[in-house]
Amino acid sequence: MKKIVVQKFGGTSVADIDKIKNVAKTVIREKNNGHDIVVVVSAMGHTTDHLVKMAKDINPSPSAREMDMLLSTGECVSIALLTMAIQAQGYKAVSFNASQIGILTENVHSKARIVDISTEKLKKNLDEGNIIVVAGFQGVTEDGEITTLGRGGSDTSAVALAAALNAERCDIYTDVEGVYTTDPRVVPKASRLDTISYEEMLELAHAGANVLHPRSVETAKQYSVPLRVRSSFNLENMGTLIVGVEKMEINKPVAGVASDLSQVRIVVREIPDTPGEAATLFSYLAEENISVDMIIQSYARKTTSTNDIAFTINKEDLPKALSILEKVKEKLGAESVTTDEDIAKVSIIGAGMIDRPGIASTMFKTLADSDINIKMISTSEIKISCLIDRADAEKAVKALHKTFNLESDEVADVKGTLPDV
Amino acid sequence: MKKIVVQKFGGTSVADIDKIKNVAKTVIREKNNGHDIVVVVSAMGHTTDHLVKMAKDINPSPSAREMDMLLSTGECVSIALLTMAIQAQGYKAVSFNASQIGILTENVHSKARIVDISTEKLKKNLDEGNIIVVAGFQGVTEDGEITTLGRGGSDTSAVALAAALNAERCDIYTDVEGVYTTDPRVVPKASRLDTISYEEMLELAHAGANVLHPRSVETAKQYSVPLRVRSSFNLENMGTLIVGVEKMEINKPVAGVASDLSQVRIVVREIPDTPGEAATLFSYLAEENISVDMIIQSYARKTTSTNDIAFTINKEDLPKALSILEKVKEKLGAESVTTDEDIAKVSIIGAGMIDRPGIASTMFKTLADSDINIKMISTSEIKISCLIDRADAEKAVKALHKTFNLESDEVADVKGTLPDV
Repeated sequence: MKKIVVQKFGGTSVADIDKIKNVAKTVIREKNNGHDIVVVVSAMGHTTDHLVKMAKDINPSPSAREMDMLLSTGECVSIALLTMAIQAQGYKAVSFNASQIGILTENVHSKARIVDISTEKLKKNLDEGNIIVVAGFQGVTEDGEITTLGRGGSDTSAVALAAALNAERCDIYTDVEGVYTTDPRVVPKASRLDTISYEEMLELAHAGANVLHPRSVETAKQYSVPLRVRSSFNLENMGTLIVGVEKMEINKPVAGVASDLSQVRIVVREIPDTPGEAATLFSYLAEENISVDMIIQSYARKTTSTNDIAFTINKEDLPKALSILEKVKEKLGAESVTTDEDIAKVSIIGAGMIDRPGIASTMFKTLADSDINIKMISTSEIKISCLIDRADAEKAVKALHKTFNLESDEVADVKGTLPDV
Repeated sequence: MKKIVVQKFGGTSVADIDKIKNVAKTVIREKNNGHDIVVVVSAMGHTTDHLVKMAKDINPSPSAREMDMLLSTGECVSIALLTMAIQAQGYKAVSFNASQIGILTENVHSKARIVDISTEKLKKNLDEGNIIVVAGFQGVTEDGEITTLGRGGSDTSAVALAAALNAERCDIYTDVEGVYTTDPRVVPKASRLDTISYEEMLELAHAGANVLHPRSVETAKQYSVPLRVRSSFNLENMGTLIVGVEKMEINKPVAGVASDLSQVRIVVREIPDTPGEAATLFSYLAEENISVDMIIQSYARKTTSTNDIAFTINKEDLPKALSILEKVKEKLGAESVTTDEDIAKVSIIGAGMIDRPGIASTMFKTLADSDINIKMISTSEIKISCLIDRADAEKAVKALHKTFNLESDEVADVKGTLPDV
């Protein structure tokens, strides 16, 4: 049996007829390399936006079940058209939606997780010489309900298929050349990484790099699927390979610098100092699925016996969070709830940090030398993040990128950095 | 258990957001009449045309399987949006595609026939108080392959669902007010029929009236499903009820006049007079699924011992037919094959003809009085058709409509006569 390669093409790669024909060529090129091919595609270009707009015009709060029914059509259009394009080149191909092959998910609409993929039909069709084109982003429950996987869903479909099929690797074709040491729009001398570990990529993704959704990287890590991020439009460039940290040779302590402008800081002031107040606060937020990122709790003020708690959440969750916090404020007897959107989180990421001390202090010193004030700090084994003024974000990224020797000799050729679903 | 009404809305009825909202109101109105409702919808307006165009741009002869995958998305968009519109009015509703409820068809793409519909999921959801919105035009095979039902497919879906659910009736909402004695664009005084039999409707449909596809009428007849054709845009008008002939009181021998401009006449001249030549000719055409309508075989010419055979087929089949006939001409030793597109078939239809003699001669006399030459004639129990010059079609319809007393006192309010898929 031939080795299987799973390829994924996002919405910008199949945005129009000519691009779909191009994708067909890329698929066939890999087929001619002697691989069995499973292709995962997203909906064409702005299809999803268009469908969402129609839905909102009809019903301001459409049911999640019907949204999934609606949105899942976008990928079905793409798979049919791409299959036709491959067939037009004289190759055997067949398309399947998630229900047909059984990409089984939990019974949750709009952000379901894949629980199982049946490979019988896929293997049978590969054995018959077919290139298989699968609809990304969608799944099906045991009861035959159509689900979607949420943001980054097509990447996750591709990685899950690669895991189920024990594929040699999963290639994520996108409109960027790979994973960079930082955003090339901010630092033109950002360098493309040839290799990065799952762990680093996860931190980079969470830290705001738009290349891959964290869920797909987590799935790849869990099943040890080698992931390659590469450009649909420049096949000469092999992009970035994402693998287990054990397979990497680590040369530099810091692999990349990321900035995240999507957060907002909330401060709840003067909470009477009683045990469990923080637990109360965060359990209410958790109930509404609001993720909290950085947290600082101040020491109790001696004069008033009150605490301040500061934390950051995603801006999208702010309206929901504020209505919860209004109730929590009453309950805890806190003085006030204030918000600050003029913030940025800058992070340095690197598997090499673990056994090299002094990285954190170098980071703090670099920011201090640039007259940048640090408001909050959080760390993990392979990441250090600082919350700073939004106005300082670009300056911070540039300075850190330089300090940690990440610059390339060449200026990156940035084609676009739209995130693909 | 409440009585079930199946409603079907075609592409023009759901062409935009406002029309979909209107359909939701019509559905709810029937629900409030105390019925359980199953709604079948087609793809929005020109969606299908748009999808077909993309496919042809990618592959001039796309595979039927992938076309079905592509086209079936159109109805899935409609069901999701209509369900959202119904929910926006505060009613419970749920959408299903053909795979989900199991509208089982033969394993044939682009024109599959329905072989079974499972009603378990439908009944369960009706019992829970849901209005059910089903994707028309599509089916699924036992292997989970997506199929489509071909022209008039959504009508057929609706009628088949009504039969499976033992519905009280099936209402086909469209952009015409019902079934008319003839095309109101040709004869403004055409009158709407309150009732017509399946048999008459079948002949009218075959004869070129665009209101309903024959297949849906055949299915309704087979399962005795009362069918109502009515306007989406004028709910005051009850449209036309189509029922079994035994349930009708027949007042007039002729119910309607139809003209069909879609045929082409082919003449194969001077075929040597050997037994079986006609069989050879028509068996070749049948093998390629080309339906032959009217046939005339001339008497053998004494001088040459040859026959001429003239017959009509649908214009769409002409290129395929000509390539077959070229071979057949060689084989039979015929002299020539000529075609004539400047023809029209006019028909009078009526269940009342059966036991009233003289209808045919009245028809021929009416045409003769209008100086119209008859080229071919064919008859069935409830229909008489004459092939005439295309230029005479309108004149013939007007004359026949008048002769058989079909005129209304009012001028029909023609809103549109686009056929719905």
